[in-house]
Amino acid sequence: MTLAQELASLLGPGAILDGADRRAREYLADATEWRAIRGRADAVALPGSGAEAAAVLRWCYEHDVPLIPRGGGSGFAGGAVPLEGGVVLSTERLVGPIRIDPGQWRAEVPAGVVTAHLHRRARENGLYFPPDPGASDQSMLGGNVATNAGGPHTFKYGVTGHWVTGLEVVVAPGELIRLGGPVRKDVAGYDLRSLVIGSEGTLAIVTSAWLRLIPAPETALPVAAVYPDLSSGCRAVAAVMGSGLIPATLEFLDEATLNASSGGLIAAVPELATDIRDRAGFLVISEADGRRDEAQAVRQELAEIMSDGALGLHAPTAPADVSALWSWRGGVSMAVAAQRGGKLSEDIVVPVDQIEPALRAVSEIGLRYELPTCCWGHAGDGNLHATFMLDRDESVELERAETASQELFDLAIRLGGSVSGEHGIGLVKRGALERQWGATAVSLHEQVKRLFDPKGLLNPGKKLARPGVL
Amino acid sequence: MTLAQELASLLGPGAILDGADRRAREYLADATEWRAIRGRADAVALPGSGAEAAAVLRWCYEHDVPLIPRGGGSGFAGGAVPLEGGVVLSTERLVGPIRIDPGQWRAEVPAGVVTAHLHRRARENGLYFPPDPGASDQSMLGGNVATNAGGPHTFKYGVTGHWVTGLEVVVAPGELIRLGGPVRKDVAGYDLRSLVIGSEGTLAIVTSAWLRLIPAPETALPVAAVYPDLSSGCRAVAAVMGSGLIPATLEFLDEATLNASSGGLIAAVPELATDIRDRAGFLVISEADGRRDEAQAVRQELAEIMSDGALGLHAPTAPADVSALWSWRGGVSMAVAAQRGGKLSEDIVVPVDQIEPALRAVSEIGLRYELPTCCWGHAGDGNLHATFMLDRDESVELERAETASQELFDLAIRLGGSVSGEHGIGLVKRGALERQWGATAVSLHEQVKRLFDPKGLLNPGKKLARPGVL
Repeated sequence: MTLAQELASLLGPGAILDGADRRAREYLADATEWRAIRGRADAVALPGSGAEAAAVLRWCYEHDVPLIPRGGGSGFAGGAVPLEGGVVLSTERLVGPIRIDPGQWRAEVPAGVVTAHLHRRARENGLYFPPDPGASDQSMLGGNVATNAGGPHTFKYGVTGHWVTGLEVVVAPGELIRLGGPVRKDVAGYDLRSLVIGSEGTLAIVTSAWLRLIPAPETALPVAAVYPDLSSGCRAVAAVMGSGLIPATLEFLDEATLNASSGGLIAAVPELATDIRDRAGFLVISEADGRRDEAQAVRQELAEIMSDGALGLHAPTAPADVSALWSWRGGVSMAVAAQRGGKLSEDIVVPVDQIEPALRAVSEIGLRYELPTCCWGHAGDGNLHATFMLDRDESVELERAETASQELFDLAIRLGGSVSGEHGIGLVKRGALERQWGATAVSLHEQVKRLFDPKGLLNPGKKLARPGVL
Repeated sequence: MTLAQELASLLGPGAILDGADRRAREYLADATEWRAIRGRADAVALPGSGAEAAAVLRWCYEHDVPLIPRGGGSGFAGGAVPLEGGVVLSTERLVGPIRIDPGQWRAEVPAGVVTAHLHRRARENGLYFPPDPGASDQSMLGGNVATNAGGPHTFKYGVTGHWVTGLEVVVAPGELIRLGGPVRKDVAGYDLRSLVIGSEGTLAIVTSAWLRLIPAPETALPVAAVYPDLSSGCRAVAAVMGSGLIPATLEFLDEATLNASSGGLIAAVPELATDIRDRAGFLVISEADGRRDEAQAVRQELAEIMSDGALGLHAPTAPADVSALWSWRGGVSMAVAAQRGGKLSEDIVVPVDQIEPALRAVSEIGLRYELPTCCWGHAGDGNLHATFMLDRDESVELERAETASQELFDLAIRLGGSVSGEHGIGLVKRGALERQWGATAVSLHEQVKRLFDPKGLLNPGKKLARPGVL
């Protein structure tokens, strides 16, 4: 029997694809695919329950076969790519039911539920799940938990892990267990739940999560302001941080990002596009949310603070205009990639007061490597999507960018930050951790991996602190 | 040389107390002392820096001597009590400087800083550190991190761990390392920081923390409402949870707690005391915070919602009256203890909709064990301080209460909750975890302990998942 046939005898033939099957191709890459990061698998398993997911890991552990957990496949770090065969376990069939309890501000959500669907279901119940990573129509809750995903609203509300009170996970050698649960406070055991959150499928497979939610804000009113240059834009960020207000977002886009994405802007937000055409060098987007009166008052104060030094201000109130602004913002990453066909974008984090030096340093690195750069991201969290724009037909550019990205990591560490705020280590940043952490912390990281996965079969080769060291 | 003399040669004589020294007595017990939980130590070490704390652990690891980390000693679980000699390491001299950066909403705070002092320093900088466990004039930040402390404002703002972005800790065999740092997002390595938070000194010694803060709310306006009985009070809690509002707190006190603490109430909040004397059976305290206009509007809405079924409402606005209410609330635990000289209080957690059955079950357990009970706590988090009031001169009562508290733990687990929401496992709840977690999760818990502390010298005998199993 082939490996796929053996698994089919466990889960039924409809739940297993042979690695040679044409349909299996969709499970071999993620958003890094254009960089020729593409793996191979012997089989793809599509379990319909946590118990079935446990059975797959049990089989893999018995047969020394790697298992690569996979959510929506929208990651930028190659974390879901099967490097050397084995079984890709997709969570896409772990989708129902979502149990939302409005009276307790909580939900129990299977791992395969798509982020945008969860947002909608929470809203229908008067509740709000704040984390909003990109690709919300593709990414899944399980993947968001596995990467501890962020997004613009993380500034006020915190990352995915802040909203998880419990997990159902599969651990080696193949058992479904609970870590935490529906209650909002729990200090009975070590926080193994947080250890799994952000572990990128290398410690356990997330099959379901209990989430804390909050009552949905009545309204959310963005304020976008255009500045002539980097310095004036960074002064605006600092002014908002020092205002005593708590905006829901504090985003930025630099001049090159604005140039790259101005096409979509003209269609979506013509008023803002006009301001930007008029010598824009930096854009800041904050947002006031909450009850209607409060959001309107905060919006007004944000607009006053942000108008200092601004070339123009765009503060839409009509829901369609608000949506247009955020839709354009959500499409920036693709617009940047479209400029030259490819991009290499790293999600470094620095202390907020180091954003300006970090942005200048990114430009300088780009000049040295002869690659056009741009940056945008979450200013309030000090989280930059520092990007080299590449001609995808010129492989030497990608090679140069990969070398240059090592300088981005050094920059983040030198400024007191981290090599990754959102995407994780995955495949593409493996080994970066040992530059950021001391030897003892790296050793603890590696020992935790061996404790949870003694055979090294869970997403092998990913989130390595040191290259080549399990 | 005695053990104390050897340590004195490392840290200097002023930083070491011999266990036989009269002054060492203060370091042998915590808030469980009246229950005759009192240890003995060979020496007390008072390091003045993280490096000195590392030297102490290094010495202990070389000489196979237990080390018991200690913060303010205000714990209710016996977590800081040295059971079988060794070295108590007090963090009280790890106090300076506190580095607060208002423009980045963050602070770097040594472990020995007293909670109330941190609150004041944050306020002086226009910022707010929300966790507010009891005994804020005694507890220290390091202890708060080690227990993942909560408090009333945890309902809106989350527990201590939500506000920690980085830790400086001492790990075995005696090295000072950093886990995380000043940045607000970081997914580069496994979340070892969260593993240490709440580990009660059994994995590492916390010597300093980087905290996320937020701009301080302009005002905070409580609304207290008196209900005739448990059912009407729980209906009010549910009404607030279903209102779409997000109060900063949602506290409750049952009839026996009100009776026990009414003395202080008459002096501090006479208006409320009058309402309560008039057949009060339950009290709910919510609070509206934020900018002035917003807080006043939310306060008004809370008052309307909570007046349904209430006997009386107390919603002070003058700062002195607001302080009086919270001071009284903060003193409830001591007032309850004063009733009969002692109390055994467990901090179980249940889903919010299970508070009413949980409170009825606590009364029933008290009746069966012939012990008066009372409950108060954090209704919005489902966190009950379920309490047996004891005659401290009758040791049989304490024995009965200890047996009865096992039924409290079973109750919490049966209702889908946890044996501890705030105090931790410490000494007094050791072994409770194996009733709450499955065997595999318990095994992971125990393996994590052995990974961080292979010799079992860090706070031995505490936070044990299974009694007697390291």
